[in-house]
Amino acid sequence: IESKMPNLATTIFTTIGQLAHKHNAINLSQGYPDFGVDPALIELVSNVMAEGFNQYAPMQGVFSLRETISEKIEHSYGRYYDPQSEITLTAGATQAIFTAISAFVERGDEVIVVQPAYDCYEPAIELYGGKVVPLALMGEDFRFDFEGLKKVLSPKTRMLVINTPHNPSGSILTREDMQKLEQLLQDTNVILLSDEVYEHIVFDGNVHESAANYDGLANRSIICSSFGKTFHVTGWKIGYCAAPKELMAEFQKVHQYNVFSVNHPVQRALNTYLKNPQRYEELGAFYQQKRDYFLRAIASSRFTFTPSAGTYFQLLDYSAITDEPDTVFAERLIKEFKIASIPVSVFYRNGSDHRHLRFCFAKTQETLDKGAEIILKI
Amino acid sequence: IESKMPNLATTIFTTIGQLAHKHNAINLSQGYPDFGVDPALIELVSNVMAEGFNQYAPMQGVFSLRETISEKIEHSYGRYYDPQSEITLTAGATQAIFTAISAFVERGDEVIVVQPAYDCYEPAIELYGGKVVPLALMGEDFRFDFEGLKKVLSPKTRMLVINTPHNPSGSILTREDMQKLEQLLQDTNVILLSDEVYEHIVFDGNVHESAANYDGLANRSIICSSFGKTFHVTGWKIGYCAAPKELMAEFQKVHQYNVFSVNHPVQRALNTYLKNPQRYEELGAFYQQKRDYFLRAIASSRFTFTPSAGTYFQLLDYSAITDEPDTVFAERLIKEFKIASIPVSVFYRNGSDHRHLRFCFAKTQETLDKGAEIILKI
Ligand SMILES: CSCCC(=O)C(=O)O
Ligand SMILES: CSCCC(=O)C(=O)O
Repeated sequence: IESKMPNLATTIFTTIGQLAHKHNAINLSQGYPDFGVDPALIELVSNVMAEGFNQYAPMQGVFSLRETISEKIEHSYGRYYDPQSEITLTAGATQAIFTAISAFVERGDEVIVVQPAYDCYEPAIELYGGKVVPLALMGEDFRFDFEGLKKVLSPKTRMLVINTPHNPSGSILTREDMQKLEQLLQDTNVILLSDEVYEHIVFDGNVHESAANYDGLANRSIICSSFGKTFHVTGWKIGYCAAPKELMAEFQKVHQYNVFSVNHPVQRALNTYLKNPQRYEELGAFYQQKRDYFLRAIASSRFTFTPSAGTYFQLLDYSAITDEPDTVFAERLIKEFKIASIPVSVFYRNGSDHRHLRFCFAKTQETLDKGAEIILKI
Repeated sequence: IESKMPNLATTIFTTIGQLAHKHNAINLSQGYPDFGVDPALIELVSNVMAEGFNQYAPMQGVFSLRETISEKIEHSYGRYYDPQSEITLTAGATQAIFTAISAFVERGDEVIVVQPAYDCYEPAIELYGGKVVPLALMGEDFRFDFEGLKKVLSPKTRMLVINTPHNPSGSILTREDMQKLEQLLQDTNVILLSDEVYEHIVFDGNVHESAANYDGLANRSIICSSFGKTFHVTGWKIGYCAAPKELMAEFQKVHQYNVFSVNHPVQRALNTYLKNPQRYEELGAFYQQKRDYFLRAIASSRFTFTPSAGTYFQLLDYSAITDEPDTVFAERLIKEFKIASIPVSVFYRNGSDHRHLRFCFAKTQETLDKGAEIILKI
């Protein structure tokens, strides 16, 4: 058979994960916590199943959960989304992103993708015949390149994909960034796909700047979020997206035939669980403690770094150690040092000459200790 | 914004479901059971969550579950699928179907779709620029049209979509049908998308004829199945597909960026639960009893019917009652008689002049009694 996607390989998370497993390495590669979930949340799911909510949820998601999400967004970012028509529950943010791209990108469209980019955006764009236009973040602190954006914006630009807090760099967009973005897009028809799955993981007193908080952006945005990231249940595969109703109507045209609906008991449990905003509002402090613990533990290593401003990832610069390409170095670290990380160049369309590996610090103290111990030896 | 899919409406299941709810009608429309799930299965999921398997499952699915599914398929249909590379867990069969179409259908490809057709196939095909070539089943017993297939097969045919047991008609493909199909496709490159979500629901001593059981078909097939249908948990959104590894590799290229992976605790629970084949082998007898109960109860109604041979749906012919189009009649039954069913013409590309409504009998005796009572008055 002839392949539609001859050049598409297996996702880095599967490749590195399998290699880490094979070599019994400390796994700081794929982004997920290795600690327990709140037993209260598990109990809620168990109770909902026992109560009998085991058949199809509505296509858009359980209505009461959509109401609760609407309240959460309004409470956090000051914009009201109509639960009737502007919110959809998805099988993780990945499915929201794939579905949004499916609903809007057509042959010949240009889609500007901020680089380094989480690996699911580009294959989806190309599957629909869209052209990926890369836009690299700048400098060691991975700032947004507004001059660059001006240059690549064109009448063919259908969509811009941003991600804040940013995976893998750990940078965040500021209030000023969002305002500039709002202004630059103001006379365009560009749809903004705003991947905000780490919205509750920002550090050092900064606040998450959601596209929802800027009318000029919100009116053109599909905003994606993830309960997996927020409540330490990446394996439950549940997220949501919010968008003005004209955009959401198009999104749902695809969603209904892609997955139809998502896990019903988990939705009902989350509805109850979400009622207590502390549960997500304390997440930044929780992960900041982990980041600080990890960075202190590796302070005397040969890696250098700018502390992550958000997400649960930390980039480490290894240019003082070797000039091997990051894919080669990452593989060697797994095999020789028994520690797994993600080489950042795979998140660039045309590779990159940075010397960066990404480490996930959503781990127990014990795992961070073991990881740090190895890192100090590299 | 300009729509990519200007003519695509909301799925019939959402539309009718909402109308049924509004009018407080007995709901025999959307296909799901209204009775309880085996508490043993719920307990398994609860236990797995408590044991801590709440992070990403592998992209392809939990390996031990893929092994168990491989054994199940071999035991049921005599073909071995390599759990390493030929089985993928999906967010329901719907996501498997959407992903399979995404992976193989390109602009200009023709896809033959047996009609009446479950409503998710065609929008997906058209999203990728494929051309839907309808092939209607024949007669009151909805037989496969092999002469018709010969006529529509062309060098442009990329895929054929079949569904057995067949939703909505309740017909099944026989051994002879499968052999004829095998022969007709033998000199082609056509990919077979075989939707077998009702594989364990066949009646009257018939057996399910899976594409897996016919080498000439299996070698070209993506076979989709559903734990939601088999274990009465449509709201858990979990299914799987099996295909030879060359096809599965292409499938996974899309799967990994569509949903990445599916609910982890549910997968582990199903692995244990599946070990007892009785749990699915008795399903046919279970639903046959419901079909018989329902048909006896409505025997003196003005509807006529051929008993369903598989699935949990029964078509009722209302031509003795009215010559209203089925969409009009279905809506009237909800509003005036407080009973909801699915008009079958929506499953035809160009409508149909049949006078058929589809009723779901995956219901408690009490619901079936209430439904029958109303049907007798129509
Ligand atoms: C879908 S697997 C990847 C998880 C993740 O978000 C990451 O590691 O970047
Ligand atoms: C995905 S909702 C439809 C359920 C079903 O299989 C049917 O009613 O035909």
